[in-house]
Amino acid sequence: MLIKNITGVKGIKCWGLHSGVKSMRRDLAMIYSEVPAAAAATFTQNDVIAEPLKISREHIKDGKIQAIVINSGNANACTGAQGYQGARAMADTAAGALEIEPELILVASTGLIGEPFPTQLVTDGILEMVPKLTSDSRAGSFAANAILTTDTFAKEGFLEFELGGEKVNMGGIAKGSGMIHPNMATMLAFVVSDAHIDAKTLQKAVSKAVDRSFNMITVDGDTSTNDMVAVLSNGLAGNPVIDSENHPDYPIFYDKLEEMLIHLAKLIVSDGEGASKFIEYQVLGAQSEERARKLVRSISDSSLVKAAMFGRDPNWGRIVCAAGNAAIGFDYEKADLFLGNEKNQVQVLEKGKPSEIDRNYLKRLLRDSHILMQLHLNEGEAMATGWGADLTTDYVMFNSVYTT
Amino acid sequence: MLIKNITGVKGIKCWGLHSGVKSMRRDLAMIYSEVPAAAAATFTQNDVIAEPLKISREHIKDGKIQAIVINSGNANACTGAQGYQGARAMADTAAGALEIEPELILVASTGLIGEPFPTQLVTDGILEMVPKLTSDSRAGSFAANAILTTDTFAKEGFLEFELGGEKVNMGGIAKGSGMIHPNMATMLAFVVSDAHIDAKTLQKAVSKAVDRSFNMITVDGDTSTNDMVAVLSNGLAGNPVIDSENHPDYPIFYDKLEEMLIHLAKLIVSDGEGASKFIEYQVLGAQSEERARKLVRSISDSSLVKAAMFGRDPNWGRIVCAAGNAAIGFDYEKADLFLGNEKNQVQVLEKGKPSEIDRNYLKRLLRDSHILMQLHLNEGEAMATGWGADLTTDYVMFNSVYTT
Repeated sequence: MLIKNITGVKGIKCWGLHSGVKSMRRDLAMIYSEVPAAAAATFTQNDVIAEPLKISREHIKDGKIQAIVINSGNANACTGAQGYQGARAMADTAAGALEIEPELILVASTGLIGEPFPTQLVTDGILEMVPKLTSDSRAGSFAANAILTTDTFAKEGFLEFELGGEKVNMGGIAKGSGMIHPNMATMLAFVVSDAHIDAKTLQKAVSKAVDRSFNMITVDGDTSTNDMVAVLSNGLAGNPVIDSENHPDYPIFYDKLEEMLIHLAKLIVSDGEGASKFIEYQVLGAQSEERARKLVRSISDSSLVKAAMFGRDPNWGRIVCAAGNAAIGFDYEKADLFLGNEKNQVQVLEKGKPSEIDRNYLKRLLRDSHILMQLHLNEGEAMATGWGADLTTDYVMFNSVYTT
Repeated sequence: MLIKNITGVKGIKCWGLHSGVKSMRRDLAMIYSEVPAAAAATFTQNDVIAEPLKISREHIKDGKIQAIVINSGNANACTGAQGYQGARAMADTAAGALEIEPELILVASTGLIGEPFPTQLVTDGILEMVPKLTSDSRAGSFAANAILTTDTFAKEGFLEFELGGEKVNMGGIAKGSGMIHPNMATMLAFVVSDAHIDAKTLQKAVSKAVDRSFNMITVDGDTSTNDMVAVLSNGLAGNPVIDSENHPDYPIFYDKLEEMLIHLAKLIVSDGEGASKFIEYQVLGAQSEERARKLVRSISDSSLVKAAMFGRDPNWGRIVCAAGNAAIGFDYEKADLFLGNEKNQVQVLEKGKPSEIDRNYLKRLLRDSHILMQLHLNEGEAMATGWGADLTTDYVMFNSVYTT
């Protein structure tokens, strides 16, 4: 059987096992590259930063990483010195077992905040894991599953493309609980590729692609203490090195990276048990992408819009009001608004004026589980897209009874 | 019977009647001062601004207003030229009937967005209203009720105090639907006083007091197209004019104004049918009031915190994470956190470390309908307070089935 996942990338080995932090499921993963890889990452903007991120931020500064260790079940956040030493032990233990420098290791955690970090279980697990590292595709699946918390399915992606005549592979795994258990709502994504690209150029690509993917999904507007997206590219594909954004192969690599991150981001949105709908928000005809992005975020973050979608309510007043809430100088009198599902949309506003609509037909479209909302500003050529879930009674129920 | 309300202010007359915009209840109010009053206001920050606000912003520029006309049932927002002409007709009709300049009139609306404005009904109502204006206290109650939409009770306040040896009166009315029908969630507040204060100094007091009251309550994070707070002070108390913030009487006036606005703001929060709890958020020991305010807003806007309060869940991880989300450089390792009701609080975090707590006792405290949350930053002397409701299943139910 040929299953393509992160192990389909040249030089990548991994594993995922049960170390005992969780009661039953796999809870520890490692991704290893046979050679040090160019590396780039983005980290949470929250002022409260999990301990492993403090270490990972330092280790990635020189743009070189060879292995990533991720535990689930304990977020190692708000754990103070004990937690910091635990995260340090994760890196040191992995480095020792892999016989590489600790600075080549990224560490990440996801799970409950504020619980003491189970250092012994995790480091024992790392020692057990290293001899098992393999490029067998089963191992990619084990790793993808071991980083989950309350996710209901593993999130994986794989792409093949060409750069300078060479075949290049890119694989990724992610986790994010969607809507329900936000103490564990860390978003983690790890992408590996065998493309040859330098770390500085890779960082530019990652920052831009994260802005268009993970930064455009709405879970509940909060960032987590543990959010992290890391991309490793080990060069084993042998393509001519992409050493700047002006390199002819850069656009191809960037497009594939963006495609991968959007794919993983949409999987995260789709995994909201508390959610009943997947909503795609597009703002078009904007003067700049930045303006379009702000409007997408303002609309998709609005509890009122999200609750209206749950209720299949074509409530354009709330959408316009949420857009105005972004305070970027939105002129609703120029705006067209379309609502519907993926296949059919109905124009509900034309230049700020309500259109004559068949309300029953539109409500039928809004029964779909995939909603598309398009807002045309008619002020320019730029656009942005975002993805979110609706706000449901289940979301509130789940979130009101979590820790206790 | 002696009921003190806005009609207890010298020179203030008002009325509220049913003009026919709503099917049954009073829907049109007027507040009139026998002499032109110093006036100050704050308006919505939303890019989409209701038509009456466009006119009121112009009329208040010279700091002099003599009458306020407010209709409910139709927000006159997203109504274009037709709506603008309707709002203009409101002001012109009132000015004609009162025999004053139109520039002395403020107009405000609240109700459904995007419906054509019923100009004829409203102007007919104004003509019927003017002869009825009176300082009888019943009229204050009529006015307070006529500005409501889905509010479940009228919101009024009255204060007496002394300035320079003279007795001064201050009355206020407000509306705000709390949580349920946010298409109508306009926050309106109108305060009248007979204090003698110049318009410029009054504007400074109003801006500051609004920042500490209406800007510190959380409905659902969205601003409405129609939000407006206006304060009229007609000078009939005869106190020496307060002509700057350095005037010895200014602090007394300011404190009373802040007390009034906080009183009205808390009434608005209390009127959330979809809400089960009133939550007071205090951030103490901050380097600056601005930092404290940002943290209060970040915590009280968090869906996760609000859902946890609904579930009586002392989930300190969410509170710390929401504080970190403000991205102001919050250091949780210095922070103390207390949770409970008005009378009893339990320390759940001490310098960032979870305290040993009696979880059952704390959960019992959180059954109270008035929750107090105190976050001590231990970094300075400033503080801020805010008020909000919890996020309940009822909130989502109501908001998913509103217009259609």
